[in-house]
Amino acid sequence: MNAPLRQPRTRPSPQTLDSVLAQLAARFGERFSTAPALREQHASTLTWAANEPPDAVVFPQDAEEVAAIVRACAAHRVPVIPFGAGSSLEGHVNAPFGGVCVDTSRMNAVRAVHAEDLDCVVEPGVTRKQLDAHLRDQGLFFPIDPGADATLGGMVATRASGTNAVRYGTMRDNVVALEAVMPTGEIVRTARRARKSSAGYDLTRLLVGSEGTLGIVTEITLRLHGIPEAISGGVCAFPSVRAACEATILTIQSGIPVARIELLDAAQIRACNAYSKLDLAEAPTLFVEFHGTRAGVREEAERFGEIARECGGGAFAWATEAEARGRLWQARHDAYWAAMSLCPGAKGISTDVCVPISRLAECVEATEADLARSRIVGTIVGHVGDGNFHVLPLVDDSDPDEVARVRAFIDRLVERALDMEGTCTGEHGVGQKKMRFLEAEHGPGALELMRTIKRAIDPHDIMNPGKVLLP
Amino acid sequence: MNAPLRQPRTRPSPQTLDSVLAQLAARFGERFSTAPALREQHASTLTWAANEPPDAVVFPQDAEEVAAIVRACAAHRVPVIPFGAGSSLEGHVNAPFGGVCVDTSRMNAVRAVHAEDLDCVVEPGVTRKQLDAHLRDQGLFFPIDPGADATLGGMVATRASGTNAVRYGTMRDNVVALEAVMPTGEIVRTARRARKSSAGYDLTRLLVGSEGTLGIVTEITLRLHGIPEAISGGVCAFPSVRAACEATILTIQSGIPVARIELLDAAQIRACNAYSKLDLAEAPTLFVEFHGTRAGVREEAERFGEIARECGGGAFAWATEAEARGRLWQARHDAYWAAMSLCPGAKGISTDVCVPISRLAECVEATEADLARSRIVGTIVGHVGDGNFHVLPLVDDSDPDEVARVRAFIDRLVERALDMEGTCTGEHGVGQKKMRFLEAEHGPGALELMRTIKRAIDPHDIMNPGKVLLP
Repeated sequence: MNAPLRQPRTRPSPQTLDSVLAQLAARFGERFSTAPALREQHASTLTWAANEPPDAVVFPQDAEEVAAIVRACAAHRVPVIPFGAGSSLEGHVNAPFGGVCVDTSRMNAVRAVHAEDLDCVVEPGVTRKQLDAHLRDQGLFFPIDPGADATLGGMVATRASGTNAVRYGTMRDNVVALEAVMPTGEIVRTARRARKSSAGYDLTRLLVGSEGTLGIVTEITLRLHGIPEAISGGVCAFPSVRAACEATILTIQSGIPVARIELLDAAQIRACNAYSKLDLAEAPTLFVEFHGTRAGVREEAERFGEIARECGGGAFAWATEAEARGRLWQARHDAYWAAMSLCPGAKGISTDVCVPISRLAECVEATEADLARSRIVGTIVGHVGDGNFHVLPLVDDSDPDEVARVRAFIDRLVERALDMEGTCTGEHGVGQKKMRFLEAEHGPGALELMRTIKRAIDPHDIMNPGKVLLP
Repeated sequence: MNAPLRQPRTRPSPQTLDSVLAQLAARFGERFSTAPALREQHASTLTWAANEPPDAVVFPQDAEEVAAIVRACAAHRVPVIPFGAGSSLEGHVNAPFGGVCVDTSRMNAVRAVHAEDLDCVVEPGVTRKQLDAHLRDQGLFFPIDPGADATLGGMVATRASGTNAVRYGTMRDNVVALEAVMPTGEIVRTARRARKSSAGYDLTRLLVGSEGTLGIVTEITLRLHGIPEAISGGVCAFPSVRAACEATILTIQSGIPVARIELLDAAQIRACNAYSKLDLAEAPTLFVEFHGTRAGVREEAERFGEIARECGGGAFAWATEAEARGRLWQARHDAYWAAMSLCPGAKGISTDVCVPISRLAECVEATEADLARSRIVGTIVGHVGDGNFHVLPLVDDSDPDEVARVRAFIDRLVERALDMEGTCTGEHGVGQKKMRFLEAEHGPGALELMRTIKRAIDPHDIMNPGKVLLP
């Protein structure tokens, strides 16, 4: 395949950088900034990756302005780092080689909702909750919910998913088309608004999950769904992680179209009881939700209840009214903050893996044992219908021994998932922190194929350099 | 982006070709052939594209053998054309520059069925019906049904879909991972067996729909589904195409999870009545199918019946027993042969487009009017839940005026679909015959991006040259 990148990525020289920044300052006025505090906010803050701020932050208002930034940077090989809400978890928005951060927060219009076609067109800075509020009156919703109030642009970049993915798929499945600025500064559209097409290479899916390393997304056409007539939610405790996973497998295999099926381990339930003043049994617990007609969700909940009993589950409490459902699901909603409160002052290092569902129980059990053996305080929350789970180890940053133990734990977690035909990340993305696992996951041939694509599209490595692929 | 292909594609010289063929003949023995009849069978026969046979046909048995063929051809820039069942419709398997056809029919093992994970691993020569028969005993099925008994490898190549796509998605959504031989002869795996991943570029989706122009698929991991507890099917005639499309839109919008929703126009029903000895009303007709629990499919069928009535539909006949359903659906199953029987001796030129569903009625009505105005005998069958429909003009090959009228009709059909934010092909693929529409559909920037990818991965244009992209 192609020759390697022409030269290894380095920071631009101060003179080069100054000239590009001056050009952008002149064009963008108060929408351009080099203020240190702002720059730090625009680098990764939610991880223990070092904060590596960009040299400047620009707030474009449309694709033409993004293209102008990219062209100015491309001419001098200055890095361009797209920024949404800053809620990514693996160091995606750091600027290890400096460069210009493109903050999309002012590109936050919902441009069109095509209710008849069940799609909408949004700018990349629209957040998940903003879109949700916009759609609610029309009886529509966008199902992908990664927890944080991320931007849709960021969710495209990381191929996000979350609790609803088991029923509605991930960003991969729910993006119809993209507009993006490529490293040349050219604005391209990846597809038409038809629901399916066989007309050439799937540029949409190439950009979804590329983490800003191939281009900057400037418009997104998303698939929508009708708000279901009825929603019912329920909670059920199990004697073991294995029993909860078995109930999950049986539910999926029986074709029950569960909309959410979430596992919280005993440690997480303990944290939730303390944080949210609940009195749930401190046992592995499944939180489920069904979407459909009134009769349909009742039937599904009943069938799930039978499966749960077969697997040794306790009483299955369920409710269809929003308020009662909210109370039942309280623990799941508060899971992150509850876990964080276990060790006040500690840093939570959220990481995720995904395995074939048949291996999930084994993987979660081994991971719980590993946490205990490694003397790490941490909880496990899983989107178990997909075989995807998160571990949140809590780390005292100032304790080098603890830091080393957590690092080694994450290495073993990924190795365990890969040994089970799984992936090093189900939904967080690669960023800086999971690059080292890609060769083990994909093999040298597939990784080189990714590099070939990167080199061909971005030969000067200006798009979010130092992420996903080591050149 | 990158420089253009180093030199325009031409046929290999006779000496070069002879030496490569001799090498393959020595290695593959009776699994290598240059017999003219066999070569002709391995070029496109289902269209009016000229039959352009390859120089030889090889029958490899595993990925290593495919890699050996590719390496032998790559060394001398001899084209490699993958071949499944030969059921593609746009000239995909023609060999305009000669070369070696890789027939995958002996790579037809179902390697594994992971019932717990709802996936299976197959070789590319496994056909849809073969897989169906293999899975049935295990209560599982693979939903993608393009009509023909295509191979799974071919279905990956063209991003096939068909009648079930409205509920279960297309090949894009149902391929978990691929193994493929790249133009270097290297064997790569695109992904692990986890149901989702954010670990790098989506190589799986890059190969799905690439029509053999980037690599040859040698193993496919597919997502499976449980056979539903109950299936009900029904048929309903409408006063107009518009009314049938409105019923479809309302059904989709109401979130009724219809598994199939197929439109046959009045001309097609007339053909079916004659061919299958039926007495259906000669009106636009929807054929629907619901998958779920007994209570669920009953409720869905009732709700569909209400919607159909609201839209002016006639009596909605439905049945849950397989035999009765089969009778109701008879016309749909026989549609292709019924249409062909309208003009004995004529050639059927099956083509497809796909538009946002809100534009479907308008697009189908305009197309019917165009057929009439152009004095073309042809029928329309649509996977209307996706906005996708097929037109089957019947052409007397020996009548140059009719051929010209049909060509011009297809040009207008595509133009009409593109004007409505649609695509030139929803599921057949580009092949040779739809290349000329890609620039209008995608714009020069996106098309150049596709070319950049092609050049980077296959710089010598050995993989199925003359398809999808003009260099």
